[in-house]
Order: sequence, then structure tokens, then C-alpha cells
Amino acid sequence: MKDVQSEKDLRHIPLKHVGIKNLRWPIELMDKERGTQHSVANVTLAVDLPHDLRGTHMSRFVECLRTLGPVGLNEIENILDKLKEHLQAEKAFMQLEFPYFITKAAPVSGMTAPMDMDCVYKAEKGERFKLRITAVVPVQTLCPCSKEISDYGAHNQRAWAKMEIEASELVWLEELAALADAAASAPVYGLLKRPDEKFVTERAYDNPRFVEDAVREIALRLEADKRITWYRAEVESVESIHNHNAFAVVEKGE
Amino acid sequence: MKDVQSEKDLRHIPLKHVGIKNLRWPIELMDKERGTQHSVANVTLAVDLPHDLRGTHMSRFVECLRTLGPVGLNEIENILDKLKEHLQAEKAFMQLEFPYFITKAAPVSGMTAPMDMDCVYKAEKGERFKLRITAVVPVQTLCPCSKEISDYGAHNQRAWAKMEIEASELVWLEELAALADAAASAPVYGLLKRPDEKFVTERAYDNPRFVEDAVREIALRLEADKRITWYRAEVESVESIHNHNAFAVVEKGE
Amino acid sequence: MKDVQSEKDLRHIPLKHVGIKNLRWPIELMDKERGTQHSVANVTLAVDLPHDLRGTHMSRFVECLRTLGPVGLNEIENILDKLKEHLQAEKAFMQLEFPYFITKAAPVSGMTAPMDMDCVYKAEKGERFKLRITAVVPVQTLCPCSKEISDYGAHNQRAWAKMEIEASELVWLEELAALADAAASAPVYGLLKRPDEKFVTERAYDNPRFVEDAVREIALRLEADKRITWYRAEVESVESIHNHNAFAVVEKGE
Amino acid sequence: MKDVQSEKDLRHIPLKHVGIKNLRWPIELMDKERGTQHSVANVTLAVDLPHDLRGTHMSRFVECLRTLGPVGLNEIENILDKLKEHLQAEKAFMQLEFPYFITKAAPVSGMTAPMDMDCVYKAEKGERFKLRITAVVPVQTLCPCSKEISDYGAHNQRAWAKMEIEASELVWLEELAALADAAASAPVYGLLKRPDEKFVTERAYDNPRFVEDAVREIALRLEADKRITWYRAEVESVESIHNHNAFAVVEKGE
Repeated sequence: MKDVQSEKDLRHIPLKHVGIKNLRWPIELMDKERGTQHSVANVTLAVDLPHDLRGTHMSRFVECLRTLGPVGLNEIENILDKLKEHLQAEKAFMQLEFPYFITKAAPVSGMTAPMDMDCVYKAEKGERFKLRITAVVPVQTLCPCSKEISDYGAHNQRAWAKMEIEASELVWLEELAALADAAASAPVYGLLKRPDEKFVTERAYDNPRFVEDAVREIALRLEADKRITWYRAEVESVESIHNHNAFAVVEKGE
Repeated sequence: MKDVQSEKDLRHIPLKHVGIKNLRWPIELMDKERGTQHSVANVTLAVDLPHDLRGTHMSRFVECLRTLGPVGLNEIENILDKLKEHLQAEKAFMQLEFPYFITKAAPVSGMTAPMDMDCVYKAEKGERFKLRITAVVPVQTLCPCSKEISDYGAHNQRAWAKMEIEASELVWLEELAALADAAASAPVYGLLKRPDEKFVTERAYDNPRFVEDAVREIALRLEADKRITWYRAEVESVESIHNHNAFAVVEKGE
Repeated sequence: MKDVQSEKDLRHIPLKHVGIKNLRWPIELMDKERGTQHSVANVTLAVDLPHDLRGTHMSRFVECLRTLGPVGLNEIENILDKLKEHLQAEKAFMQLEFPYFITKAAPVSGMTAPMDMDCVYKAEKGERFKLRITAVVPVQTLCPCSKEISDYGAHNQRAWAKMEIEASELVWLEELAALADAAASAPVYGLLKRPDEKFVTERAYDNPRFVEDAVREIALRLEADKRITWYRAEVESVESIHNHNAFAVVEKGE
Repeated sequence: MKDVQSEKDLRHIPLKHVGIKNLRWPIELMDKERGTQHSVANVTLAVDLPHDLRGTHMSRFVECLRTLGPVGLNEIENILDKLKEHLQAEKAFMQLEFPYFITKAAPVSGMTAPMDMDCVYKAEKGERFKLRITAVVPVQTLCPCSKEISDYGAHNQRAWAKMEIEASELVWLEELAALADAAASAPVYGLLKRPDEKFVTERAYDNPRFVEDAVREIALRLEADKRITWYRAEVESVESIHNHNAFAVVEKGE
């Protein structure tokens, strides 16, 4: 059968990325506490394409992905190497978006339950391997202005602490989750009994934080971590007094 | 050209619905305060199909929709009549999902801004015309348990008050929005200055409401309205202490 | 601590559902070929609430869910029984929405890869246990009209065959997937090499199907299965010549 | 009342962005053919924040947005100037995401209907004004490999041609839509009668295009337009033989 993809291309336009997207795939992830955990990823796989080749061989992306083992840093680089080899490319790219579960203990009762967070591994390899890790941790923010100006109460809400990092060594998703919890008005939990609810309510009231405060608290902690070479942090709150969200962003070096 | 759709079908299976979905369309809506307003709808159009016909003529749905005028009750029935006629059907069905804006004044400063809510008109006509109207109004709920057990503060959050109704007469979307505001701990606004924020914070603290409370307050008001012949009400809150939502549902006659 | 939820309610409005929604949870599912498989579910849990009780105890839903074992029919009923007991309710409700993977072999090369489909288990138990299973199977449809009237070619597209069923005995998700494949112009695969692509292209061209045809082919097969006591089938195609979708619905008994 | 936001901040962390997100707002847009058209936008507004200020004044974003007139290049810059002034910032940022409708005539019958596309205006102003315009145009792609290797037929599907550009002069969204149509196997329409469907089917079969081909055809046209100073183009196809998508990206200067 004719290999149409391998035809010469005369348009002189190299492609930055060519590949597949929105591929759902069952994955096994390295878990700091339990060894591994299972999840389902939304996968993007791509390579670059030189200007003189008409197309890539899309089925080879899935063939490489079929060999994916438990996902850690080495395994991600390993898949990128395979993509480069099997697709005869200079650069390979992979993105895995997945929910990740951490087991959280309620602050008073100690009862445990899993809590989900959205995470992303975004990796590429040309000459060298580059990886960005994103964790979106649900937390609570309580408005300092509302607390200050009101005779009682203060509006609060669920918020997302989104951290995207590059690091020179392994940083666990569990570490990013703990860091976000410390930076917010209060953590969010999967399971709380009444004494826990009292504790969390008072903790949030004692720690009022704008999105501006929370994102700076995150940035301070990311700056202090010597493993982390670059970061972008964003806190977005589902404002309980508006139908829109507030957000604040810090990016290293900007 | 051959009309494949009009071929005889021998499978003896009538179709409840056949039509088009996920069609975005600019619409003009009746507005209680301002006469009309513009929005963009996600449209579903369908008819039934008798067991002995192979297919319907999909392009006629769009042809009928092109004649849509400002959307009120008469215009919706009008389009259903056209669908029945042009597609030679016994029953026609239309659903319009759209954001609708109401102008809200802040409670102290009186400053105004539009606030969006998701709405749905779901209509069908066989022998008689039937219409369900849905409004999803963003509101605030403050947890009575959290307030009661804590020395200070109380967790609160954005919530959606979703009302689906059938009525014997016109019920404005603005009326459903006002009803939801009255049933919640506090309304949600597009624009609040500091004195407004103080007012809203204290109002919510003074009116703690579980989702169970808020949905019952809505049900009481819907029951008391003689125009409303059926309803389903749901309140869902984006819990600020969890990463999942709480919800409660009342349905007339259940 | 005061139990605010257990206060008397004087509004005389029973709640159909009260519970939690949008709770993500890792699950293990019964798998026809491999014993079990892991996935991540979006979970809804609810009970009814009598008119004279103010609220339910939300944390007990998560406490019950923590005991969830590998998900089969018995385990679903088991959780519903626990919910009824621990929340002192007459009725309990659970919905699990999750991606499910089936391993498909390409039609010529025989190469295998997982393919995802969206599935739902929707269960309730009052006096008796009731379960609805939904599978949304991606397939291909090729337009019979386009083939007939064109000198060459025919527009085709990805489509979703959505089947919701009640059954007197176990029906595997794998069975619903196979049934959808047989009803469409061609199945959809995770991995196809060139001889497979030729096969699938020609198979679709040889089996042109409107959404009306495909949904009737599904209905014929569901009707013929004695285990299936009720169904609703829908086929929706992502039309390649329009920016909207076509769909057709059959519901047993309508 | 105390102005908590204006407190000194001692954490020495400047914020890149602080503002509001997910604000839905009715807008009026400049329309090449009809003067203006109405739509609904999802709005992001932000400014930078110096290291020594604790917070911004969120309500001022909405106050500025209330003055938004029909959206053209001048009006976008105008709003950014207001944000800089009213929020005393060095930089202001605005993003509008909205559906935009173009009226398309069917290729044979000439019948017209609106067709929607997702568009984005992403603007910022520090010392100078910078604007990126994105249009996501639905088109059809027909696979050259499938056509070549099959005895008859060829798989085809809906695809998105996504173009993000910077330009020295006005480029209409209508121009980007026309450019995408020319680069694809065939355009997509809101309304087609049977002679149109025959035409479109044959046109796609006569113009097989991989995503790699289509994105290069787009890049050639964007390169040739002297007004366009930067672009990123992506074509993503909803593969009809798989449950994942294929995509290709070109970025100027990479």
C-alpha cells in the first residue's frame, strides 16, 4: 500500500507539533504514600515534522503508548525517546491530564477520605528532557475585606490553587497539595464530622486571605524550595457574593 | 435526485425524536424590564417519525429556525407548528438553552450591573402545546450547622437555585430570579462596593440556609403561585469546605 | 454539639433527593474479559427526606462510599442498603459516571488497544432495587443520502450510540459496545494500521446509515434481548458537513 | 470603612495578573457585512500589582466594563486605558471569548444561514497595545491516506481550524473564516439542500487533506498576508475512525 504520509512536501513549512489529542487512557501513577495509584488520563502525544515530509504516522503514537508503565519521571522520558525513535523525529511531546487522589485526614476526628485534584504532566524532549508539573488543589479562601468591614461573618468560598512548576529533582504532587493547604485560609477535605467542621470554619475565619495573599504565600514557598527552578502560581476563587471568579497570578522572573 | 429519506422503512420502529442538536443560534428574547435582549442559544429541534418512513429532512429544521422572531410563548408555539407542517410530523420539539441577563442593583450603593443566569425553554406540541421553563439562578448559601457549632464565622459559598416549571400563564425569568434570591441566604450580584459587601456578608450570616432549607423556601413560593402548575426545584451548593457539592430536590407531586 | 440537621421542620415539604454531587472517586469495576478494571467516577449519592426533618447528615454519604468494593450489581445494591440504614431513609439513590475501557482488536492486523466509552450506573432502592445502565459507544456513521446523490465519496463522521437500559439480569458493558458496533456504519478503534484503515473505510461505505437507521438497528437488537426490560437508545452524529449534530431517539413503549 | 486592599505588603512579590474571570457579559461586535452583531462573552479582566500593595479593587473592573461600547480595536484599547487609570496599574489585560456568527450561502442553492465559530480577543497594554485574535473555524477534512488505499470511499470528519494572530492592521474574523475554508477539504455550512450536499461531498473527495496539509495551507495564506505579524495555526480533526483527535500546529518563527 502506498505510504501517502511519506510523500515529499514542497510547501517549505515545518510543523511544530503533529500528533493525537483527547485520547483517554488508563494509567498507573507513582503515589508518595501508597506506591502507586490508578487513574484515567487525557493524553496528547506529538512530534515535530520537517518541512519536506507530508505527514506523520499517527498509529505509532498509540503503539508507543501501549508500552507505558507506571508513570514516573523516567517513564515519561522513556516514552518520549520511543516517540522520537519510532516517528523519526527531532522532538517529542507528551501531555497527561488526570485526576489524582490524596488521602486526607480530617483535622479533629482524624477520619480519612480521598480528595481529588486535577494534575498535568507536560513533557518534551529535543536534545534535553523538560517537564512541567501542574497541580490544581481545591482550597478555601475567606475574604479579609469582608471580615474587616462586617460586624459579623465573612464571605468565603472554594478556590483553586494552581501551581505549574519545573524542578531539578522529583517534587511529589502530595507536596504541592500540602503547600497549597498552608497558603490558603483553610484546606478542603473529602470527609468532615461536626468537630472538624467547627475547626475548619474557625481556622478560615482566623486566616483571611485574598487571592492575592494566597498566591503570594504559595510563591514564597515555591521560591524557598531549591528543587524548583521555575513556577507559575494562580489562585482562583469561586466568589460567593458574585457570579464571577477572582484570580491572581505570580510567575517566576516576571 | 433520489430522496433516500422518504424510502419505506420495514423495521416497524417509530422514532420518538429525530432532529438536530448543538446548533448555536443568535436569539432575541422578551425582557420584562427592557422589552427585548439579545443572547446566543444552543438549540435542539426534533420531530417524531412514523415507523414506516426511513428518515427525516434535516435541512428543514434550519429553514424553519431562520424565521424565528423575538422569543416569547407565541413564537415558540409558532415554530413548533411550522416544524409539524414542514416535516409532516405529529409532534414537534424545541429546546433553547441560553444565558439570560438581569440588571441587579447593589443593596446599598444602588449601582447596577448585569448578572447572567442559565435558562432553558423546552417545548413540544403534539395535540396541545407544552412548555417547561428553567432558570438557574446563582445565589449564596451559609451553613446553619457551621454557624451554630463555631465560635465565630460560618462557611458559605456560591450555589445554584435551579427551578423548572410549567405554568398556565406567562412567568418571567426575572420573577424566578427574585424568588430564588428571597429563598437563599443572600443574593449574588454583578457589582458590589464596600458598603454593599458589608450588607451582603451580614445578610447571609443572619439567614443561614442549608440546601434543604433553600429548596423548601423556593417550593413554598412556587406552590403559592397559582400560575405554576408543575415544578421541580433543586439547590446545589459549591461547598467551600469540600471538593464536592451538596444538593436537595423537591418535585411537585412526589 | 447541637445537631441542627435533626431539628423539626414545619414547612411540610418532603424532599425527593438530598445528598452530594460531583464527588470524584477512584473505583474498581467488573470487567467481562479481565476480571476487574480501574476507573475514576463522578458520584452522586442521595436519599429522600421526610417533611418534618430539617436536614440530612451529609458526611455519612462519604462514610458509606468509603466501603465501596469492586462495582457489580450486588455491590451497588449493598451501598444503597447502607445509605438507607445510616441516613435513616426510605429511599436511597446512587449514580456513578465513569469512563470504561474495552480492548478492541483491529479488523485486519489484529493489533489491540483500549478504547474508552462513557458509562453510567444509575440506581435507586426504595422497596425494590432498580438499576439503569448507560453506555455511550463511539461509532462511525456514513450518510446514505450523500452516497446516493454523489458521483463519488460520502460524508461520514464520528457518532455516539447511547444506550440506557433496565434489565432482569446482568448485561455487560462489553455487550452494549458490540451491539452498537453492529448497528453503525463501522466501529471506531483505538489503533488501526493501514490495512485496517482500508477495511474500515470500505466497510463504512458499504453500510451507509442515517442516525435514524443506526438507532433502529440498535432498538431491534435491544428488543430481541430477553434480559432487557426497558431501553432508550439515541444516536448522535458529529455531522462533518455542518457545525451541528444530527440525532434520533427510540424509547421502548413510546 | 477600612481599605484592606490598600495595605502595605511586605512579601516582596509582584503579581503578574490580578483580576476577575468567568464573567459573562452581553457584547456588541463589529461585523464586516452587517455593521454590528450581538453575542455573549466570557470575560477576563486583570492588571499587574506592585510588590508593596496587598490587593486590587475588584469592583472597579466591572465598573470599567459597564462602559464597553461596540467592540472594535479602538474600544478594546480604550477599556485597557480605563483599567490602567482606575486601578492605578502599569499594565492592563482583557480577554473576550465569544461565539461569532457569519452568514454563509450554500454552494449551489445559495440558501443562507448563520454559522457559529468560537473567537477570542486577548489584549494587553503596558507601554504599548498588543492584541491577539483567535478564530476557531469548523471545517471538513478528508483523509488522503484513506482515499488512496481504499477501493472506494474515504473517511472524513469535522475539524477545527484554529488561527491565533497578531496584526498591524484590522483583520476581520470573516477573513479568517474564508481562509480556513480554502485550506480545508471542504467548508462546513449551517444549511445545505441536497444539490449542496452532493457538491460538498464531491469537493471534499476531490481535496483530500491531512491535518498536516490543512494547517500548512493556512500557514501559507497567513504568511502571505502582510498585515499579519505573528500567527499560530492548528487544525484538529474529530477522526471518524478513532475516538481521539489528530492535530497539527505551525507557529511563525519556530
